[in-house]
Amino acid sequence: MPNEKKINTKVLPGFLELLPAEQLLFERMKAIIADTYESFGFIPLDTPAIERAEVLLAKAGGETEKQIYRFSKGENDLALRFDLTVPLARYVSEHLNDLSFPFRRYHIAKVYRGERSQKGRYREFYQCDIDIIGRGRLGLVNDAEVLAVAYETFNNLGLPPFAISISNRQLLSGFLENLGLSSLAVDVLRIVDKVEKVSPEATKEALLDLGLEEKQARALIGFISLRGAGSEVLGKLKGLGVENKTFARGVAELEEVLCYVAAFGLPAAAYQVDLSIARGLDYYTGTVYETKLLDHPEIGSICSGGRYDNLAENYTSQALPGVGLSIGLTRLFSQLLDLGIVKAGAASPAQVIIIPFAEAMNDRALTLARTLRLAKIKNETLLEEGKIKEKLSLAAKRGARFVVIIGEDELAGDFLTLKDMESGVQRSVSEKELIVALS
Amino acid sequence: MPNEKKINTKVLPGFLELLPAEQLLFERMKAIIADTYESFGFIPLDTPAIERAEVLLAKAGGETEKQIYRFSKGENDLALRFDLTVPLARYVSEHLNDLSFPFRRYHIAKVYRGERSQKGRYREFYQCDIDIIGRGRLGLVNDAEVLAVAYETFNNLGLPPFAISISNRQLLSGFLENLGLSSLAVDVLRIVDKVEKVSPEATKEALLDLGLEEKQARALIGFISLRGAGSEVLGKLKGLGVENKTFARGVAELEEVLCYVAAFGLPAAAYQVDLSIARGLDYYTGTVYETKLLDHPEIGSICSGGRYDNLAENYTSQALPGVGLSIGLTRLFSQLLDLGIVKAGAASPAQVIIIPFAEAMNDRALTLARTLRLAKIKNETLLEEGKIKEKLSLAAKRGARFVVIIGEDELAGDFLTLKDMESGVQRSVSEKELIVALS
Repeated sequence: MPNEKKINTKVLPGFLELLPAEQLLFERMKAIIADTYESFGFIPLDTPAIERAEVLLAKAGGETEKQIYRFSKGENDLALRFDLTVPLARYVSEHLNDLSFPFRRYHIAKVYRGERSQKGRYREFYQCDIDIIGRGRLGLVNDAEVLAVAYETFNNLGLPPFAISISNRQLLSGFLENLGLSSLAVDVLRIVDKVEKVSPEATKEALLDLGLEEKQARALIGFISLRGAGSEVLGKLKGLGVENKTFARGVAELEEVLCYVAAFGLPAAAYQVDLSIARGLDYYTGTVYETKLLDHPEIGSICSGGRYDNLAENYTSQALPGVGLSIGLTRLFSQLLDLGIVKAGAASPAQVIIIPFAEAMNDRALTLARTLRLAKIKNETLLEEGKIKEKLSLAAKRGARFVVIIGEDELAGDFLTLKDMESGVQRSVSEKELIVALS
Repeated sequence: MPNEKKINTKVLPGFLELLPAEQLLFERMKAIIADTYESFGFIPLDTPAIERAEVLLAKAGGETEKQIYRFSKGENDLALRFDLTVPLARYVSEHLNDLSFPFRRYHIAKVYRGERSQKGRYREFYQCDIDIIGRGRLGLVNDAEVLAVAYETFNNLGLPPFAISISNRQLLSGFLENLGLSSLAVDVLRIVDKVEKVSPEATKEALLDLGLEEKQARALIGFISLRGAGSEVLGKLKGLGVENKTFARGVAELEEVLCYVAAFGLPAAAYQVDLSIARGLDYYTGTVYETKLLDHPEIGSICSGGRYDNLAENYTSQALPGVGLSIGLTRLFSQLLDLGIVKAGAASPAQVIIIPFAEAMNDRALTLARTLRLAKIKNETLLEEGKIKEKLSLAAKRGARFVVIIGEDELAGDFLTLKDMESGVQRSVSEKELIVALS
């Protein structure tokens, strides 16, 4: 029959929809992230995707307001969340007295941004966030823990070599104050945030255009080029002779955080100090992180986060300092897939496909399926009537590594035929042997 | 500091938001459902929450159109999905040639219905669906498998005694045809669908009001009262002397499905035939199911589904017969919680909380935390500076069963103190003994 389209069934531009094998890979990555977050005792949270528009737009700037999906229903002015941090701020403010602090939550869910559609930008995408929120106070050891969670997450995902860059927002602010450039800080930070994407010359040009003197621009570029092991960069920072309180606080905080990071047992190769990272200007106030795959800098940061003085100033007068990070999983996943760094495997979660050769073997097949499920072995039984050839072809399409065949001989002889679809090797096994082979 | 509200941070009416302990319970139930679905080889699917409005409204009636969250962005007329079946129909139509059939997918996600807000009705809620879709054809054994999945799901959830009711839509249709009441079928089905909520007298009254003769109403009420074990009800059905093709097909299909259900090994007490269940008139064409908790009929059906001739007639001319079921988890969860059938436990996923008495013990605590994570033991280390009393109080609030204390004695003596928070018993253990105790 022709597949005549009556209504456009294509997924909307900017939305990701996966076929089974890719979906299974995506789910596995999502589960590894969730498991890692939970292994540190982070609590799962699930807030509505729809919020009051006034909640979402309380702090948001013009760009967010343009991108947000906003609509009304009855008398309510509603919108879809564009991140998981604003809903967290609302949640913590609302449930302040029912939570125990530090409140450590993770949230893995879709967020919505109606951006101009372009390659690598999604309008619906998963964020995988952790945050630690203090009530009134929150020690710097938490900044190190968040970094340790990021490290273990990427390690558990089995990603190729990566490095987490760490800095402290106050270093650059203090350095600019010291140069008498505080009034230009916003514009300077915007230029610095792009430093990896453009040449040093272009960065310098942009800084001169902004009104910086040649000497100031050179000093600034020298400063943001500082990168390396913690002790090395800290030494250089202390040697700069910058006399500024903000700067000094940045140095002290960075030193303390790095000391805690070492206590978390991270290998030295996994992280570095990098003064060029600036991250979301308005938001972060202390520690900032970014993570890059060393062999794939073109992907950009795969995980970023940092410390903020006050999570929820728009919703509560209780001071709520916090530190967190976010992995944009949808974008990361599609980039890893495009680059061949991750590869889709089977198109079914079944570890084994059970094939009864005819209806007379269905009962045996179903008893076996139940036994395997009890042994935590996921399976599918091909019960739909059809030729053996069709059933084997379907099993191959499902992509399961193993197939169990039950024909007349097997039924009569009380054995099972186990076929390894990878090697093509077939052998007769008992039920017990089968469970051992598949466990 | 006073918690002065600046913006309304309450969750919107009709939306569910949980505190940590409840959320963890909810996540556990969701995971059990997903695991059970996967144990039968169902493939996870994740489609966008936003669809083209024309896709969602292709088949929908007036009620859906009123309830739907619809909005535009740029030139697009968009809406939030109100179920997971319409997106499935679009997905299968779009990816027809990339999927292997029967296509077996599960989908656990939120759907949106802007209903009038009332107790027990949610505007955002989780559906947990499975469907088996055939390309052109789909055997009745699949109807039995879906029922078996429902049984194992509720069994794995540890719910109190439940029974799955099964019927076949063609039985009632054929019975009505035989009475010459086909033209009134829609109205009759609407009345029948409410039969559990009103008295038999009220049902009869409603049928008489519709224009049925006394004799017809009595016959119909007798018919929909048939309920019990498969063989028993099938015998009664065959003895009714109804000469009608649709009816005969219904009997034959029901008999075949029940035969397969037995092959799936379901205990007889877990299911029954119940001719009163009617289920979503327009949609189902053969087998229909509902599930009730035997001691809590007031909850209504906790899971329903059935067979449909054609999943996606609005999107493709390929015939796609299917069978599926849906658990409305948000409503089920809140009812089980209200009735005390499920109870929230710990407010943290951590199996153990590690308490270093002072900063000098942080390194030891962090090494232990890493060792426990490697042993798959989720843990949280209380690193935030504070008094011992505060730390113990926080551990109690987290609700973890076990606490490990590391003080000066433990550090000097190279042992750990394990405290069982339930019994209050404390004992000294080695790292190995700790892992054994917690595994």
